[in-house]
Amino acid sequence: MRHSSFGRFEGKGFMKVSELGEFGLIEMIARRVGKAREPVVLGVGDDASLLQPSPGRQIATTTDMLVEGVHFTREHMPPQDLGFKSLAVNISDLAAMGAEPIQAFVSIGLPPDARVEDVDLFYSGVLDAAGPAMQISGGDTVSSPHGWIISVTLIGQVAAGKALRRDSARPGDTVFVSGPLGDSAAGLALILGKSIVKNRGTAEFLIHSHNRPQPQTAVGIALSSSGLSACAIDVSDGFLQDLGHICESSRVGAKIEAELIPISPQMVSAARENGVETLFWPLTGGEDYSLIFTVSRDNKRNMEELVVSEGLTAICRIGEIVEEEGIELSRGKKPYTLPRDGGYDHFRHE
Amino acid sequence: MRHSSFGRFEGKGFMKVSELGEFGLIEMIARRVGKAREPVVLGVGDDASLLQPSPGRQIATTTDMLVEGVHFTREHMPPQDLGFKSLAVNISDLAAMGAEPIQAFVSIGLPPDARVEDVDLFYSGVLDAAGPAMQISGGDTVSSPHGWIISVTLIGQVAAGKALRRDSARPGDTVFVSGPLGDSAAGLALILGKSIVKNRGTAEFLIHSHNRPQPQTAVGIALSSSGLSACAIDVSDGFLQDLGHICESSRVGAKIEAELIPISPQMVSAARENGVETLFWPLTGGEDYSLIFTVSRDNKRNMEELVVSEGLTAICRIGEIVEEEGIELSRGKKPYTLPRDGGYDHFRHE
Repeated sequence: MRHSSFGRFEGKGFMKVSELGEFGLIEMIARRVGKAREPVVLGVGDDASLLQPSPGRQIATTTDMLVEGVHFTREHMPPQDLGFKSLAVNISDLAAMGAEPIQAFVSIGLPPDARVEDVDLFYSGVLDAAGPAMQISGGDTVSSPHGWIISVTLIGQVAAGKALRRDSARPGDTVFVSGPLGDSAAGLALILGKSIVKNRGTAEFLIHSHNRPQPQTAVGIALSSSGLSACAIDVSDGFLQDLGHICESSRVGAKIEAELIPISPQMVSAARENGVETLFWPLTGGEDYSLIFTVSRDNKRNMEELVVSEGLTAICRIGEIVEEEGIELSRGKKPYTLPRDGGYDHFRHE
Repeated sequence: MRHSSFGRFEGKGFMKVSELGEFGLIEMIARRVGKAREPVVLGVGDDASLLQPSPGRQIATTTDMLVEGVHFTREHMPPQDLGFKSLAVNISDLAAMGAEPIQAFVSIGLPPDARVEDVDLFYSGVLDAAGPAMQISGGDTVSSPHGWIISVTLIGQVAAGKALRRDSARPGDTVFVSGPLGDSAAGLALILGKSIVKNRGTAEFLIHSHNRPQPQTAVGIALSSSGLSACAIDVSDGFLQDLGHICESSRVGAKIEAELIPISPQMVSAARENGVETLFWPLTGGEDYSLIFTVSRDNKRNMEELVVSEGLTAICRIGEIVEEEGIELSRGKKPYTLPRDGGYDHFRHE
């Protein structure tokens, strides 16, 4: 499969950011992001942006930094997907708190020979992910001698006291996941040439899952506003590691029935074609951006009603929170052993 | 003069971040920043932080990215000063809106061979700048193949409708500056070896002004809460360029009496020793982080009273806002011509 990516046209006529200059670049970006509208009082163009928070709400803030050569490569990531994903992973963090995203601050470090066209494509991806509800309210544009750097900070709102927190799981709670796991890791294996899939549609689906993850904002807001869940996390490091974060913060354990974990037929077929254990990508892969959340026994019935009324039909029950610490996996009632250690440690894996 | 700086001890026993690992590093930082307290409901350790805004207030947000080799060099910037300045320049942006700083989000990209000790010193500088009122509520720690990267986002609060905006200067307003200009640029010239100063105390004063700028938070809050000013900016790009931002946003011009611009005896003596025009650094240097602000005729008397009651005695009147666009400089009633174009354009000056 061919991917469009950074600097794919090798003509000499393309304008570089060094030719446009800092203020030209800022003007181009400001024109793209448009004027501030309610509840944002002041957007790009002053020393700070201004937001009028709604009564009874708390401000939720999250931030991420992405470095070329560490989190992405220009060969493998088209600039519009890079823009989309940079925002989407942060929207997902807000979804995992049950918060509605409002403002984005996007800072970008660019080598002097970066193409203006690629920067424009990057922002088109950012705006795709932002959708009509979110506003780009600021950021910084700087020079970077060695490749692209992106830093995104997102501000959202959640009803006071109703945020979904990692430390709120209780023994007896049911564990749910909001959508399929493993597609993103299967897509990454394809992108990196670690696996091959014959069917073009399957490959495209998996790569798209990796490059354009869909944050579960509707699920997060439904859970917090209904009060049916108090605890959630998004699957970024990998299912086992992220469920581990909930267990550690809440000082509980979990029993997971591995056969209940939702997986896509595309992921299953890619795993089979490449001799990969079916549950390897879903359990350890990460970057799925589905939500893991827990619901108390008292709310179980109401949860079922919410799934129907809100059309959240991708949600699956996968296990239970228990007192004893640690995560216990079973498959068909028998103990199941992990394929390998999950998660990615940015510094150790250098 | 000798400066302590990054990796100044060449022993082999110092621990590198690659040895500590990502989670070890996060734990070290989380211990340093401490637990969340009001009005922050949730700090480091979940998918997002939570802040309870005060009634009648707006949320002011600003962000900056700093890249090694572009905004600082490890040779010339001790890690504790880098931490201090990274936060201070953003606190200054909030001060320029009249906002009180509340939360900081500090993301850091580190090469695998960065020293844990330097990272610790960096955060000690961050905490010095934050002071007791601000809280470090989040951030990201990532690997960077080519040197340090810092991205800071700050959240503050300001009374609704009372923020100091660039677009609010009106003809007839008096222009003020909150403190001396040029010290930072004079310090930078010393650091880079572009100038030499015999007196050690003078050199230390100027270098300190560059490395540890003091944000004018008290001035900014006094101006917004009293309602005596509606328009301010902090001097980051250079006085002429920043005053130019006010003029463009407000569609006005300014007449500045250059001899009224506050300058320190240390800066004057450094300029003389090096054959630099006395007003060159103050007018074009930048990174002073004093505030330029305007006060309407009706408020002039009350402004004088505020200066006395709040002890804001470093504030100087330096000119007037006029209808005709452009900045007109005079010195001793005669027209004065700029020494050279001010401001620093990140991409063009590569």
